[in-house]
Amino acid sequence: MSKLSEYRQVARDLNVDAVALVPGPNFTRAFGKPFMSHERPFLAVIPEEGAPAAIVPNLELGSWALVEFDGAVFDWRDQDGYDAAFAALTEHLKIGSLAVEGQVMRVFVQVALTKAQSDLRIVDGEKAISGLRVIKSEADVAALQVAIDVSERALSHVLDGVQIGQTEKQIESALIQALFAEGADDLAFSPIVVAGDNTARPHGKARSDYAVQEGDALLFDFGARKDGFAADITRTVFVGDVSDEGRAVYETVLAANLRGFEVAKPGVTAHQIDDAVTGVLEASPFVDRIRTKTGHGLGREVHEAPYIMRGNHEVMREGMVWTNEPGLYDLGNFGVRIEDDMLVTADGVRALTSFPKELLIVAR
Amino acid sequence: MSKLSEYRQVARDLNVDAVALVPGPNFTRAFGKPFMSHERPFLAVIPEEGAPAAIVPNLELGSWALVEFDGAVFDWRDQDGYDAAFAALTEHLKIGSLAVEGQVMRVFVQVALTKAQSDLRIVDGEKAISGLRVIKSEADVAALQVAIDVSERALSHVLDGVQIGQTEKQIESALIQALFAEGADDLAFSPIVVAGDNTARPHGKARSDYAVQEGDALLFDFGARKDGFAADITRTVFVGDVSDEGRAVYETVLAANLRGFEVAKPGVTAHQIDDAVTGVLEASPFVDRIRTKTGHGLGREVHEAPYIMRGNHEVMREGMVWTNEPGLYDLGNFGVRIEDDMLVTADGVRALTSFPKELLIVAR
Repeated sequence: MSKLSEYRQVARDLNVDAVALVPGPNFTRAFGKPFMSHERPFLAVIPEEGAPAAIVPNLELGSWALVEFDGAVFDWRDQDGYDAAFAALTEHLKIGSLAVEGQVMRVFVQVALTKAQSDLRIVDGEKAISGLRVIKSEADVAALQVAIDVSERALSHVLDGVQIGQTEKQIESALIQALFAEGADDLAFSPIVVAGDNTARPHGKARSDYAVQEGDALLFDFGARKDGFAADITRTVFVGDVSDEGRAVYETVLAANLRGFEVAKPGVTAHQIDDAVTGVLEASPFVDRIRTKTGHGLGREVHEAPYIMRGNHEVMREGMVWTNEPGLYDLGNFGVRIEDDMLVTADGVRALTSFPKELLIVAR
Repeated sequence: MSKLSEYRQVARDLNVDAVALVPGPNFTRAFGKPFMSHERPFLAVIPEEGAPAAIVPNLELGSWALVEFDGAVFDWRDQDGYDAAFAALTEHLKIGSLAVEGQVMRVFVQVALTKAQSDLRIVDGEKAISGLRVIKSEADVAALQVAIDVSERALSHVLDGVQIGQTEKQIESALIQALFAEGADDLAFSPIVVAGDNTARPHGKARSDYAVQEGDALLFDFGARKDGFAADITRTVFVGDVSDEGRAVYETVLAANLRGFEVAKPGVTAHQIDDAVTGVLEASPFVDRIRTKTGHGLGREVHEAPYIMRGNHEVMREGMVWTNEPGLYDLGNFGVRIEDDMLVTADGVRALTSFPKELLIVAR
């Protein structure tokens, strides 16, 4: 089935006349080329039947010409604005309802659509549209593996160079340079490189005024982007030395991570995986340090379906990729997270990440 | 006036009860800390009168605690979903209308708001909300200058190393590594490093299968992000040699860029600047190669108001920063763009960029 047929089927499944895609992961998947999301509306509409149509900013026509697109194109220039293009698109398509990507499309595009056709019914089709990316092809997995390998080589390089007295920012900068030196196309996301009390913030930011000290936890949550796919890896190491508490917390998190390998396989639900992994944390003395779910799907986006959390009864299927990232966070003290990228196989699961997980003390 | 008072005033100006901010440039400006935009709704609502309120994903509470926020916080956990938090927020605020950032807020947040309160009137307040960022403070300009200086040092380093036979991707990778080595916090955007026919695409992507050849145009459009502010610089050089056509196009674009320095000052409109700059291109033999407006505002976002284009009669004021980036693009042949970052001063304009603009031939 061609890519566009898949989106036509989504429209039928959602009982709408068409699906709209804006630059982002689904757009790249559908059209094979990345486009930037910016202040200019850029939109492709794939009707349930018939040819697609697109609104393309005039200055993108050269890049758009590289896409095989067998449909009407309504371009617009900055000086003219885009209202006429939206009017022409809706007049051309004559649709009554449209599913959009709620997590990708911004409100101004919805406003422009509604302005052009006030009776157009717009529904959030995020789950179904992005659902087409949930099962990874062999090519997808190969691309993910390259992104992960690049990331792990970079981490290895950086850990060799960590020294007491470096700031979080200095270590972050070394990591980013190593990622590009190893071949990253881009960062999958702005990396989290945090030490000491900052490790207790799941989304902490590197500080330029904090130098790592002996005994600190040092957490790296990062990934390369390569050929459109994103790695997402976390390792927590200790600097110079580790306290008994640090070791106990680390071993608890590692046990939870390993539990994920035991329970995950086709047929098991996301709920069951989170329940098993988080159950290990809950049975520990550190139960009050739990702040996050086990993980999320991974592919063209760093966070995508399936979300590995209690209450999500989605069934795991062969070809899904997800992050196994239990953590424990004690605000004002420290946190530990260990994150692997997992591929669901025919009868179980295997990690695409291979960076060692034994407790590691660096700079000693 | 405190930051929050400014957003209250925007609500009054727009005749709505409150303004909503989601993670992004306005959010960072209002609360002083950057937060990631991801699949979890995260929202601050600043009413025209009374205390603000926020919806915060539970795992962000640690980072949110670093923000001075004197209002109600409704947090939610992944396993519970966010519907209850939206219901509690709307019940708490009792507002009838809300201005949102149309270019930043995604449709799923609007859907969640409407689900919680079906009679909530939501308007796109992007222009007024982001308008608070249009006049840069001295501190803003200083931060921009640092980002620009980092960027220019990186470009200088990379140009010294360009060799015939390198791929666009290799040169791009060298540029990115140099940006971080020089101190960038992040990339302002995914850089454009293109050569030969690829320079004719204003938003082209570096190719790993194209090696630069003697005579190629080689275009860099890139910038560092530093302390929340983004640089945006373009320089086009030639590799080994330049054709007469290449030189003529280059000199035309440079003349257009220099025209921007002559006409811009407080009181002149964005329309008038674009008209003057584009007028130089239109008076040349290359009139059919014009594909873009003159530029856009620059600050926390790479593309923000004021947009320097015909039809925009916004008046330039002291403290505005905008890009002066005329270009000529001949699809299948080559393109040239020269971009400076301009600060409107009391009586004119000055460039924050200082990288030389004489035609430069590298690798010879």
